[in-house]
Amino acid sequence: MGAEFLTSRRVRFCDTDLAGVMHFSNYFRVMEDVEHEFWRSLGLNVIRRDGDAHLSWPRKSVSFVYHKPARFEDEIQCHLQVSQVGDRSITYRVAFTLNNEPVAEGKTTMVCCRMQNQTFQSCPIPDDIREKFEGLGK
Amino acid sequence: MGAEFLTSRRVRFCDTDLAGVMHFSNYFRVMEDVEHEFWRSLGLNVIRRDGDAHLSWPRKSVSFVYHKPARFEDEIQCHLQVSQVGDRSITYRVAFTLNNEPVAEGKTTMVCCRMQNQTFQSCPIPDDIREKFEGLGK
Amino acid sequence: MGAEFLTSRRVRFCDTDLAGVMHFSNYFRVMEDVEHEFWRSLGLNVIRRDGDAHLSWPRKSVSFVYHKPARFEDEIQCHLQVSQVGDRSITYRVAFTLNNEPVAEGKTTMVCCRMQNQTFQSCPIPDDIREKFEGLGK
Amino acid sequence: MGAEFLTSRRVRFCDTDLAGVMHFSNYFRVMEDVEHEFWRSLGLNVIRRDGDAHLSWPRKSVSFVYHKPARFEDEIQCHLQVSQVGDRSITYRVAFTLNNEPVAEGKTTMVCCRMQNQTFQSCPIPDDIREKFEGLGK
Repeated sequence: MGAEFLTSRRVRFCDTDLAGVMHFSNYFRVMEDVEHEFWRSLGLNVIRRDGDAHLSWPRKSVSFVYHKPARFEDEIQCHLQVSQVGDRSITYRVAFTLNNEPVAEGKTTMVCCRMQNQTFQSCPIPDDIREKFEGLGK
Repeated sequence: MGAEFLTSRRVRFCDTDLAGVMHFSNYFRVMEDVEHEFWRSLGLNVIRRDGDAHLSWPRKSVSFVYHKPARFEDEIQCHLQVSQVGDRSITYRVAFTLNNEPVAEGKTTMVCCRMQNQTFQSCPIPDDIREKFEGLGK
Repeated sequence: MGAEFLTSRRVRFCDTDLAGVMHFSNYFRVMEDVEHEFWRSLGLNVIRRDGDAHLSWPRKSVSFVYHKPARFEDEIQCHLQVSQVGDRSITYRVAFTLNNEPVAEGKTTMVCCRMQNQTFQSCPIPDDIREKFEGLGK
Repeated sequence: MGAEFLTSRRVRFCDTDLAGVMHFSNYFRVMEDVEHEFWRSLGLNVIRRDGDAHLSWPRKSVSFVYHKPARFEDEIQCHLQVSQVGDRSITYRVAFTLNNEPVAEGKTTMVCCRMQNQTFQSCPIPDDIREKFEGLGK
């Protein structure tokens, strides 16, 4: 579902570990950072006021499968694609590549929540966000 | 398969994000840190010399499912259990709990590799490591 | 001024970088984590409610001088000492050692602030906190 | 000494903490990342082969003074200036600004080292690197 959003990130020194490669946990940070760039490209923000609360999108589940290591200063191509828009959740996938070879594939399901006093309550996705996501690739 | 290894970790301030909870990527760092404590409890180290190379265990795949947030200074109970020992890989699961309620569940599959000049070549799990892991819970 | 607070931290895999040593930025995270353990040892918490706001302690300045590298699984001894208690700020120093040899020395000055709607306003240190800090080493 | 190198970085969600602002330790990571972009702009790399060893630049000392908080998605302007080139060390300063207002000021002194088997030995700065740094701003 939907068109691919493409951007890139360069592996930082502080994201490597003693094995000389990007630490596996940092793929999740890059994935999220790419997601936020994607939202901005749609004119949206992952955090917004909603009356006296905020709308936010905590993760329900995330995963990565790793194919080959990424190293310091590698410029990773990041391909993001929305795969499902539910009533209260969105699932997207990313593929990281380097010189057209697969580096890793990630997946995130996140839930639309009203956040107030640091508690989270799931809620339906607002119409304007739904329309932006459902309009992708059309 | 195997007995449970139990330890705990306290959520650090720097592991939280603006939503007031532990950032989802840091669960992976805690999971790995618990794994290493588990290896030490077996008298093993995840990195060791192997002739002119090192044995190391890069991740093949990792995932987390989140149930409820963990907050600054929460002391999370971390339950680790080895679920599969293959020829060249080990899979384990962790459950994080707080006051006996589920916080999150993670899973890691890692591959035994010879690491030399920052390249990785998978290899059979050494016998002494295999024996330790297969002897768990007996 | 004041007695020394001593604890230890083990270097995590994810805190190392491709040079095989703990990344220099992570010393700051360990320093802060040790500080929070110190506060807990005094029966205090660095974040607390204050009416409809929170008291918090943002950093005014921080520094580290590095002597020798810390490596994966090293258990660093962390010596914390409060060096100054001002009207609205506290300065403390930490020394990290390994086998009684100096690893690094850090310094932090933090300011007592009322935090509300993500803005910070400096304020005098509450009496009960001041008394705990001024009573150190007596 | 030397011209200013200017670039920018956007504050990532994972770089914030529960106070809603960029965690103070992440300023050091941004500072280092900007430094590496600066080296690349000079046609240099902070890590390079040197016979059977590598040249690398561990930190001798680092510091930050903080003026006002940076928040999620803020695009920080990063101004880097080399302030001293010694026989074996380089010192540089960065100023972070937001809408022309000062956010924070950092300083780093790093030492040219031969790194072999994860040990570091200081050595004179190679001529080609020295020439690039001494030629700045002329």
